[in-house]
Amino acid sequence: MNKDYIIPNEWSIVEEGFHEENITASESIFSIGNGAMGQRANFEETYSGETFQGSYVGGVYYPDKTRVGWWKNGYPEYFAKVLNAPNWIGINVNINGEALDLNTCKVSQFKRKLNMKEGVLYRSFIAKLPSENQIKVSATRFLSLDFDEVGAIKYSVTPINFTGEVEFIPYIDAGIMNEDTNYDEFFWEILQIEEEENEAYILSKTLKTEFQVSTGMRMTFALNDFEIHLDKEVEKNEKSIAFKYKTNVKQGDTFTIYKYGGYTQSMNHPNEELIFECEKVLQKARIIGFDNLLLKQKDAWEKIWETADIVIKGDVKAQQAIRFNIFQLNQTYSGEDSRLNIGPKGFTGEKYGGSTYWDTEAYCIPFYMSTKDKSVAKNLLVYRYNHLDRAIENAEKLGFKNGAALYPMVTMNGEECHNEWEITFEEIHRNGAMIYAIYNYINYTGDYNYIPEFGMEVMIAISRFWHQRATFSKAKNQYVILGVTGPNEYENNVNNNYYTNYLAKWCIEYTLENLYIIKKKYGDDFKRIIKKTNIEELELKQWKEVADKMYFPYSEEEEVYLQQDGFLDKELIPVSELPKSERPINQKWSWDRILRSPYIKQADVLQGIYFFENRFSNKEIEKHFDFYEPLTVHESSLSPCVHSILAAKIDKMEKAYEMYLRTSRLDLDDYNHEVHEGLHITSMAGTWLSIVQGFGGMRNFNDELTFAPQIPKQWKSYSFKINYRGSTIKVYKDHKGCKFTNESDTPVDIIVHGKSITVSSKELVML
Amino acid sequence: MNKDYIIPNEWSIVEEGFHEENITASESIFSIGNGAMGQRANFEETYSGETFQGSYVGGVYYPDKTRVGWWKNGYPEYFAKVLNAPNWIGINVNINGEALDLNTCKVSQFKRKLNMKEGVLYRSFIAKLPSENQIKVSATRFLSLDFDEVGAIKYSVTPINFTGEVEFIPYIDAGIMNEDTNYDEFFWEILQIEEEENEAYILSKTLKTEFQVSTGMRMTFALNDFEIHLDKEVEKNEKSIAFKYKTNVKQGDTFTIYKYGGYTQSMNHPNEELIFECEKVLQKARIIGFDNLLLKQKDAWEKIWETADIVIKGDVKAQQAIRFNIFQLNQTYSGEDSRLNIGPKGFTGEKYGGSTYWDTEAYCIPFYMSTKDKSVAKNLLVYRYNHLDRAIENAEKLGFKNGAALYPMVTMNGEECHNEWEITFEEIHRNGAMIYAIYNYINYTGDYNYIPEFGMEVMIAISRFWHQRATFSKAKNQYVILGVTGPNEYENNVNNNYYTNYLAKWCIEYTLENLYIIKKKYGDDFKRIIKKTNIEELELKQWKEVADKMYFPYSEEEEVYLQQDGFLDKELIPVSELPKSERPINQKWSWDRILRSPYIKQADVLQGIYFFENRFSNKEIEKHFDFYEPLTVHESSLSPCVHSILAAKIDKMEKAYEMYLRTSRLDLDDYNHEVHEGLHITSMAGTWLSIVQGFGGMRNFNDELTFAPQIPKQWKSYSFKINYRGSTIKVYKDHKGCKFTNESDTPVDIIVHGKSITVSSKELVML
Repeated sequence: MNKDYIIPNEWSIVEEGFHEENITASESIFSIGNGAMGQRANFEETYSGETFQGSYVGGVYYPDKTRVGWWKNGYPEYFAKVLNAPNWIGINVNINGEALDLNTCKVSQFKRKLNMKEGVLYRSFIAKLPSENQIKVSATRFLSLDFDEVGAIKYSVTPINFTGEVEFIPYIDAGIMNEDTNYDEFFWEILQIEEEENEAYILSKTLKTEFQVSTGMRMTFALNDFEIHLDKEVEKNEKSIAFKYKTNVKQGDTFTIYKYGGYTQSMNHPNEELIFECEKVLQKARIIGFDNLLLKQKDAWEKIWETADIVIKGDVKAQQAIRFNIFQLNQTYSGEDSRLNIGPKGFTGEKYGGSTYWDTEAYCIPFYMSTKDKSVAKNLLVYRYNHLDRAIENAEKLGFKNGAALYPMVTMNGEECHNEWEITFEEIHRNGAMIYAIYNYINYTGDYNYIPEFGMEVMIAISRFWHQRATFSKAKNQYVILGVTGPNEYENNVNNNYYTNYLAKWCIEYTLENLYIIKKKYGDDFKRIIKKTNIEELELKQWKEVADKMYFPYSEEEEVYLQQDGFLDKELIPVSELPKSERPINQKWSWDRILRSPYIKQADVLQGIYFFENRFSNKEIEKHFDFYEPLTVHESSLSPCVHSILAAKIDKMEKAYEMYLRTSRLDLDDYNHEVHEGLHITSMAGTWLSIVQGFGGMRNFNDELTFAPQIPKQWKSYSFKINYRGSTIKVYKDHKGCKFTNESDTPVDIIVHGKSITVSSKELVML
Repeated sequence: MNKDYIIPNEWSIVEEGFHEENITASESIFSIGNGAMGQRANFEETYSGETFQGSYVGGVYYPDKTRVGWWKNGYPEYFAKVLNAPNWIGINVNINGEALDLNTCKVSQFKRKLNMKEGVLYRSFIAKLPSENQIKVSATRFLSLDFDEVGAIKYSVTPINFTGEVEFIPYIDAGIMNEDTNYDEFFWEILQIEEEENEAYILSKTLKTEFQVSTGMRMTFALNDFEIHLDKEVEKNEKSIAFKYKTNVKQGDTFTIYKYGGYTQSMNHPNEELIFECEKVLQKARIIGFDNLLLKQKDAWEKIWETADIVIKGDVKAQQAIRFNIFQLNQTYSGEDSRLNIGPKGFTGEKYGGSTYWDTEAYCIPFYMSTKDKSVAKNLLVYRYNHLDRAIENAEKLGFKNGAALYPMVTMNGEECHNEWEITFEEIHRNGAMIYAIYNYINYTGDYNYIPEFGMEVMIAISRFWHQRATFSKAKNQYVILGVTGPNEYENNVNNNYYTNYLAKWCIEYTLENLYIIKKKYGDDFKRIIKKTNIEELELKQWKEVADKMYFPYSEEEEVYLQQDGFLDKELIPVSELPKSERPINQKWSWDRILRSPYIKQADVLQGIYFFENRFSNKEIEKHFDFYEPLTVHESSLSPCVHSILAAKIDKMEKAYEMYLRTSRLDLDDYNHEVHEGLHITSMAGTWLSIVQGFGGMRNFNDELTFAPQIPKQWKSYSFKINYRGSTIKVYKDHKGCKFTNESDTPVDIIVHGKSITVSSKELVML
């Protein structure tokens, strides 16, 4: 049973009623972030029930010592983990000396609302304490987009049936642990604790990586909206500091604490200035004040929604879901810092450790490319460019030579930190996504300069890898790629995974093609690249030989490319015939049974067809879709979106809609019973793709921007916007037809259902 | 560089000179055991240098909580570990208050000798202490074969250049740890410490498994061979107890402590009687006395050697090596207790944890079958019979039904305790070895009753497994076995491993064949079996269909069966062309590189051909040998023996001898740089096979005992004995010919080089 307690609402995520069993799930779903920091929806006040505490600072990680059962040569020594950071949100509350703890109270009118339009989290409730004293509490919290080192909380208590002493105990606590540690170690060292009037700071340092973070808090108080001044008592230990403020509050009066808090960290400031910078930014926040910060927050989110929003009419749940996906993607990555990336759980949990997977290249870049300035996608590409040396080192550890690069499966700083041989060493298709993202970026933005400036070095190193990784099979008189894991991780150590072989061949060809372009048109860059990479004519010939003679498993009978050698030896029983009690197979079956089954975790052959759709006829796409989709269990969050897009392409709108539903409310309805661990951030980009590329039919191959809008019969209309080469195009589709509005000053050529159209500046075209 | 400091000697393992860097290796090599307990060659006196302490009690294990990087469904929760048991050998020595510690002394005339003929370990040396006092020390130690709960030590100190006080501090210590723990936990709880006159006992219990062990010591003393009585001081803490005895010793006089020690344990006595039983057996030992115990020890070993010995003339190192192998096998397993088995490290180390691998069935049973009474091999078979229910449970965990059994890869109590999916779940060929061992036992002993009484239930459960594990491939119109790891563990998750498919087919056929025999000839057993297993005609038909239509990968061009599907896609560069710097590949290469290479860790296709050699022509054997041997890196200790045997079979005596050398002195010369972790006990049976089946050409297919003796040109002669169906046959081979002596009263029919001969009682036949 999936949980579906989230109340449908077009612009907000809403929870009503207090249910212990939903606490950790809601802590994930109501997470907030501003690209630089993030915060799970933990309560400010103490909570003695089950909770998963999480505060995160972008880019700050800890290399946890690898834990394995059986060591294999080449395993990395460390696994970079997202770090639970010092807690700045805490405000304990005592009522006449009695602690407010929802786990011990009778709670009524509990309501949470995450206003996505404005980027603000609200919570309110009435609590009857064991003493029978009743209070009304309301809390408002946001992480500022304008000042990304700042969060602000307004926390108000109103006695309902008594007059008494209300005590606020705001604190910061660096004595936190990760839930996910390999050896139950503490990852932080506390360096300094500072206190002033109504402010406190803790400077702490991550062990090994030596990131320094100053966590700060600064408070003001109000009684019935009038600012008041209170004396404090200090409570301090080696890892935390708390201030106690109390005052007498009459029945019906409201006592409010404003807490400004957040982090300054060593990626952005010199270590010795961290506390000072933290002080400075919190002072600024206090001077601007809570209400003005909140206004700015609304403005900032309005700007984001201006292009990012997708409007769906006739289906509130779908509307809520797509906005939730877009909202979370924007909370996770703002695109201004090429040292950051999009972790699979963003700032909402610790699972999967390190930050960056191939998800970024395969799923996220198109979203950021279409909804933000092209510099954002470029920053994501540059992130990998900056890791090139590490990717070369990584390949060297596995025996590759001569500047071949293997990008890591999971990374924070460019080093591999995953350790399952079948993934770490064999899921090498990820390397292809690095070049595909460049190709995608060039196709979409037309910013060809990226290749001579940055891309080509990455492309050469990856092509070198593919060249060395392929094996010449005498038996086949072709090149084979042995021992890989494809995107479908329910197959390990297979030979000739179609997707991997296809990408390998394509990578080499695309690299060669562009190398000749650069040679012709970018002579200086060409010289620099040749010098740096020592590439020689002979090597290029060898590459070409590998690409030309690449083997692809194919079934004449089925007229499909096979996912890998031997795929047809399996018993091809469709997923629909599996008993429900055996699903999900990754929870019910042992690994060997999964491996020898035909079941596909996520799009594999179809992922390749999706990437290179322009090279396949609709008939071919349909053949492959009809062969593979019935065998796909979609037990990866990244699977349904690709199927939704391809289904729309081949006019299977029912299937496309079914797949869309799976992807869009995955977390809101907790399909996989794991939302408490955090949200599936990267797959949210897939949801966006399902609408824009799926229903909207947007593609950008060969310098053309094409559309083929369709609409699910369950909806009345939908619309989305994209930024494309200086223009902003709004696409609207209902059951009568579609409209294209160019909201920019730049005319744009598009192709709709095969027909070329120029949409002039500010023009509306109806079709 | 391999270590080769062991001095060649026909009957002894000898080390001369004190070299710190050899201490841990010698601790393994000079290990002693009596089938019920074992002891690494740790010094009695304290040693502050690097040492690996190990005392072991047969059958006593600890289920250490599994440690993995990434959990897979079906993994066992625990890994049964061989336990380091309380230390009973310790005798600290003080000279005028100065501790004897070879790490702080100048040591001369250090000599160790493991007399294999008599089963006794000697050590002697002269130590100059920091004070310049010099002493001569000699220590004699053995674990009694007659009283398998007893060990005895005679430890003598002679002052050389002074007269002074010598203090002996014998102790027992239960405060020991395993070197190999997953979570650095202590595995023992101490229940009781008892002391009497010159005796002490510690009763301790293993956590979780609750084995109880009483460790005891009992001392007597002598000055120049005259027994003396000494008062003691007691030193005791929660986990250990020590007695201090001192006396003045004149220059040139010898002060000796006799320490009788050992274990009684709860597999053999009620818990409440363990201390009493320990007291009793140590008292018995003391009464018999050290010298008489030693005489009995010599007698007992003489009896073992009477049939087990192999005599090689003209090659002292080969002679020493084969005796070392035979000696260690006999130290590890005496064959009297079907609850015990042969761990890969025996009583010489902790590595590989649990006790029993398929090594027992594939390699060890023939050795014990030929050199001991048939009851010993039968006990090893019954061990698995007793674990049948657990093997069925194990298969159920992996999704098999209806009484199918999968025997564990590694076990102590019948439960699986290994946790690498590619081994635990996929190295299923081990199941075949269980039936092969029965077949081998019947072939050799003629004791057919074993099948109706015990074997058939095991055979049915395993055939059920193969039936369910095979997949019908529509593409091939045959049954395939997908996703396995063969004996060659350098390939994982392959399809149609020839060895596995062959064994699966054979298992089913052999089970069906015997089921019909039982139906005809053992009606009562048949009824009991049918009732117990619920086997039905339809199921048997389905089995037969699987066996009849089993697929085997074959290359028409190479005329060989392929190790697995796709093997010919690999680059088949022979091992001889690999640079030395890349060997061993399991230390130099990452796992993916090993997997996609053609290199074979141990005999795989050839293992199958070895098992069923009577079904292959010499030409076929040669084809396969010539194809696979050049690709084999022999990085498993179990590999060279099979190659040696097959090479001899096809007249490649040079290769056979080369392979024999690799297997026979593997530990003595520390080829793999790991002897400090313990000896390779199970592969020692392979060494024995290399001579008896390899050079001697002994086979026992189809109720025939055949020989085809050959001799390596490096040797003058060799001889071995085997027990066969009541007769004892001595086989002698030199360069002139061979002799067969029937030392028993039972005439025996044998076939030598294809010629049938009857060797009558006490007769000598020369050929």
